[in-house]
Amino acid sequence: MSKPRVDHIGIAVRSVEKALGFYCDTLGAEKPGLTTVPHERVRVAMLSAGESRIELIEATDQDSPIAKFIEKRGEGIHHIALRVPDLEAAVERIKVQGGRLVTEEIQTGAEGYQYVFVHPKSTGGVLLELIQG
Amino acid sequence: MSKPRVDHIGIAVRSVEKALGFYCDTLGAEKPGLTTVPHERVRVAMLSAGESRIELIEATDQDSPIAKFIEKRGEGIHHIALRVPDLEAAVERIKVQGGRLVTEEIQTGAEGYQYVFVHPKSTGGVLLELIQG
Repeated sequence: MSKPRVDHIGIAVRSVEKALGFYCDTLGAEKPGLTTVPHERVRVAMLSAGESRIELIEATDQDSPIAKFIEKRGEGIHHIALRVPDLEAAVERIKVQGGRLVTEEIQTGAEGYQYVFVHPKSTGGVLLELIQG
Repeated sequence: MSKPRVDHIGIAVRSVEKALGFYCDTLGAEKPGLTTVPHERVRVAMLSAGESRIELIEATDQDSPIAKFIEKRGEGIHHIALRVPDLEAAVERIKVQGGRLVTEEIQTGAEGYQYVFVHPKSTGGVLLELIQG
């Protein structure tokens, strides 16, 4: 079984521009482009931070899940993503060992990568995205 | 200005052993040793996850800050830590640009590394530890 790696940390923010002010202008991360993801109703900025990345996520619609997250809990970490070498095997082990997935099946993202979300109940309170490495 | 890197993600859990069951037995992270940090009243397990790490933190005392965090918000991500190449310069820029630190001065950890905590108000809702890289 090879090892998982931290792929990114997703942070729900009210304003990506304001957050970029801190992470780029103050801390020195490289300024990334902004991407709009219409079906998730968000704008995101993906910052390189060594081998891992920081994903700043802003809602583009007040009914989007990110807007609701912020309304309920304020700005903050929304999920973390780990890259695993064999996603299918990991999902199988999670099921066998009684872990809880948010979606039962492996999903395919807009950019073609495969992922699932594991429920915070199984991970120590963290919404955990697993990505095929 | 060189770039920050993700050093670790700190997750407050009720039971480190239970969380290790998921991250090691299910996901395949290498099982680490447990360290007790008496002055912070916690037990921690530091998991390698590529270049970054996942820190599982359990309170050893019901009055410790981690116990209070869990009591108030449940298990979940407590902080993230970025390694920066020049901590002193980063702290100076944070102050000049109106950012808010949890502690005004750079602290020295038990293992000799230098760090500060930046207030969630300045970081998009994240308790952010900056570590001298």
